[in-house]
Amino acid sequence: MSEQKKLVEEITSMEVDFAKWYTDVVKKAELVDYASSKGCMILRPYGYAIWENIQKDLDARFKALGHENVMMPLFIPESLLQKEKDHVEGFAPEVAWVTHGGDEKLSERLCVRPTSETLFCEHYAHVIHSYRDLPKLYNQWCSVVRWEKTTRPFLRTTEFLWQEGHTMHETAEEALEETERMLNVYADFCKESLAIPVVKGRKTDKEKFAGAEATYTIEAMMHDGKALQSGTSHYFGDGFAKAFGIQFVDRNNQLQYPHQTSWGLSTRIIGAIIMTHGDDSGLVLPPAVAPVQLVVVPVAAHKPGVAEKAAELAETLSGVCRVKIDDSKQSPGWKFAEYEMKGVPLRLELGPRDLEQNRCVVVRRDNGEKLTLSLDEVVKAVPQLLAAVHDGLYEKALARRQAMTYDVTTMEDLCHTAEHKPGLVRAMWCGDRQCEEAIKEQAGLTSRCMPFEQQQISDVCVCCGKPAKALVYWGKQY
Amino acid sequence: MSEQKKLVEEITSMEVDFAKWYTDVVKKAELVDYASSKGCMILRPYGYAIWENIQKDLDARFKALGHENVMMPLFIPESLLQKEKDHVEGFAPEVAWVTHGGDEKLSERLCVRPTSETLFCEHYAHVIHSYRDLPKLYNQWCSVVRWEKTTRPFLRTTEFLWQEGHTMHETAEEALEETERMLNVYADFCKESLAIPVVKGRKTDKEKFAGAEATYTIEAMMHDGKALQSGTSHYFGDGFAKAFGIQFVDRNNQLQYPHQTSWGLSTRIIGAIIMTHGDDSGLVLPPAVAPVQLVVVPVAAHKPGVAEKAAELAETLSGVCRVKIDDSKQSPGWKFAEYEMKGVPLRLELGPRDLEQNRCVVVRRDNGEKLTLSLDEVVKAVPQLLAAVHDGLYEKALARRQAMTYDVTTMEDLCHTAEHKPGLVRAMWCGDRQCEEAIKEQAGLTSRCMPFEQQQISDVCVCCGKPAKALVYWGKQY
Repeated sequence: MSEQKKLVEEITSMEVDFAKWYTDVVKKAELVDYASSKGCMILRPYGYAIWENIQKDLDARFKALGHENVMMPLFIPESLLQKEKDHVEGFAPEVAWVTHGGDEKLSERLCVRPTSETLFCEHYAHVIHSYRDLPKLYNQWCSVVRWEKTTRPFLRTTEFLWQEGHTMHETAEEALEETERMLNVYADFCKESLAIPVVKGRKTDKEKFAGAEATYTIEAMMHDGKALQSGTSHYFGDGFAKAFGIQFVDRNNQLQYPHQTSWGLSTRIIGAIIMTHGDDSGLVLPPAVAPVQLVVVPVAAHKPGVAEKAAELAETLSGVCRVKIDDSKQSPGWKFAEYEMKGVPLRLELGPRDLEQNRCVVVRRDNGEKLTLSLDEVVKAVPQLLAAVHDGLYEKALARRQAMTYDVTTMEDLCHTAEHKPGLVRAMWCGDRQCEEAIKEQAGLTSRCMPFEQQQISDVCVCCGKPAKALVYWGKQY
Repeated sequence: MSEQKKLVEEITSMEVDFAKWYTDVVKKAELVDYASSKGCMILRPYGYAIWENIQKDLDARFKALGHENVMMPLFIPESLLQKEKDHVEGFAPEVAWVTHGGDEKLSERLCVRPTSETLFCEHYAHVIHSYRDLPKLYNQWCSVVRWEKTTRPFLRTTEFLWQEGHTMHETAEEALEETERMLNVYADFCKESLAIPVVKGRKTDKEKFAGAEATYTIEAMMHDGKALQSGTSHYFGDGFAKAFGIQFVDRNNQLQYPHQTSWGLSTRIIGAIIMTHGDDSGLVLPPAVAPVQLVVVPVAAHKPGVAEKAAELAETLSGVCRVKIDDSKQSPGWKFAEYEMKGVPLRLELGPRDLEQNRCVVVRRDNGEKLTLSLDEVVKAVPQLLAAVHDGLYEKALARRQAMTYDVTTMEDLCHTAEHKPGLVRAMWCGDRQCEEAIKEQAGLTSRCMPFEQQQISDVCVCCGKPAKALVYWGKQY
């Protein structure tokens, strides 16, 4: 136990310093390392394996809906980036510029893609001619670069991994459906695979994506009550199509501009996993994306039969889950702490007395529950236990969000809540940017989204008292 | 048939202009599009799907050997790139430099990674301390950038996709074993999944990787007789480890430098697939990486039962292969040409008369063979047919390489062969760089590799007449 204690003591407690707790977990669970390129992170094997599982899961969801993967270039010529006015204004201040190739100065600067709308549009202009060419449902998995002043692993880094879907449709209606469909894919994925409850909604004009007509978002609440935008989906209308001259002959032989969407989810979501489920013993991973779902720890492995039976169990269990056996020379206590730190959903302990009684002990990472199981039933029990861990994580996160979400109807109440109660605040809004800015200034909260599930908790704007147009979630955000 | 002919006529024949044939295939099979960023390519869905299949196959081979995936940053600070002298000399002339972030000039230039040895080494210095930390078997899937003057899709592009493995070992022996093991993985993959025969060998010092002690290569022969380096594996000794200060405490409590390897395979391999198997009707894809392995084409689909049976067949066949049904309104002839162009290994035709007789026709893309199969046996036959296509492609490519490989023992013969016979030339070499350069100058051939399977076809160097040290494959290369 002393070793175990020592390891655990190295993490700062959430209560003491949440930001420090976060960086401790990220380092101790061996998710990332820092690189000397400013603000860039190295994803270590354990961190990258989580991303691989996320990628595999989401990719299957995209493909089931008919999306195809492509690869666009890393570079965007400056003139191409400038084609859509709002877009370039939003992104130009934060891009990295390539000015030299080898020893030669380039005649035109290239930016390292911060997002690829412009590249997709350039290509779409080549391949979309007729309504028969639509819809185009493309996606790419890549990294993008945004020059950030202050960075934190997963949450805000100069380079990050993501997927970006870019689609083109015959009609505005179809494009709007796609925008909503993909937001639902993200929300379902968060619920079903990450055990993260999210609020689905629409961004205000102030918070929407540069160049978009509408931005939809899923917002999750972290342990400290802050909101984390976990995935976004944008509707562009035909703005980019016009800027890039993308036209098609429609069913009535008329020339039309197609309607466009884009949607993205990034390695940021790993930050959401950490801060939604983690605790003072370290990471807690939702089973669907955990690189190791169950770790087998033999206890007193030198005793006859223990090591052999543990290896046999691991082999059998590998048919139903991602399993690892740790037969290293470290003490069981050290191993327990290590796999708690790494957030492995289930730990299976097997010692000589267990072996005698044809049983083992399985410990749940999410709530510490210890179960004694017959060796005959363990293979059947593990998938059920993984499902129970998932459900347990989701319920806990949902309950926390509900407990930390406050409805307010006056500015006084809003400011007081913002100051004293970490969490999200729900309040009515008139739709004016001025009120949005006043709330930012007076309460330090930004609008997170106008939820799809609207409710009329008051008839007037919390700020100006004019008739309310929408219920808005307000909060502090990552 | 007129439509079919029209489509086919649009490709230049191999015999007429091989380079033009290549670009025609790449465009007409919808593998790539050109981007406005100089020398960058867009991988379209069909091209990218081939890469996804390659990636999935290779990734499983790497993981089965204990390799783990990571993500290193896109950028390398100039000072980091400069740490290993030979390496920076080799790469500096062809890197893209980022000099500005947003509006600010950077205090240190960053290069966009041309390869990531330096990044891996920086990280390894953080995480390797003891022999217990070894071996480190890391790999990453990413894109890299090399500023190329002249570019061709897949073969030479400014940005390309690849995987790069970077490993660290306790001893030189282990690292050398890894270097060879990974070359064998590439060679097996080429044979088993791409139906491409390769020559395995070692590069001469002149041709080896910048900073490596030894470079191993697999060389494939294209339709036009030119060689294509299809994958490489490098042994670095402890050169980088010394430059980067990576040390570990060994089993005897002594401080040691670890020994290093790296190995890579890129989208270039798609160029090899095209130029090994393609023909004047277009692409011919090896079944293991073909996005569509069998296309079902209903003939006279308006006749009772045809469309339904075709759909039912496609559904059943999807259990044994990647299948697509084309029930569009295009004529069967147009479809035949289209899927020939796209290199789909098998085409299944089903018409009303077939239906009456409970049969279908299956056509092999590799040799045009038409088979009439009972509908009861087709599901069982398809996997066998796909295997037959694979074997047929391999045998044909191997026979061609053998027929186009020439043994020579005199310079006169070497020059004559180089001038008149496209293909590879085998000749003995003394090991002197001067002779290598003379052969380049006089015959226009470069050394492709010293094959692992050595043979003494003469006792003296083909160039200088001094005692021969090695048999070398010489050729023109992509």
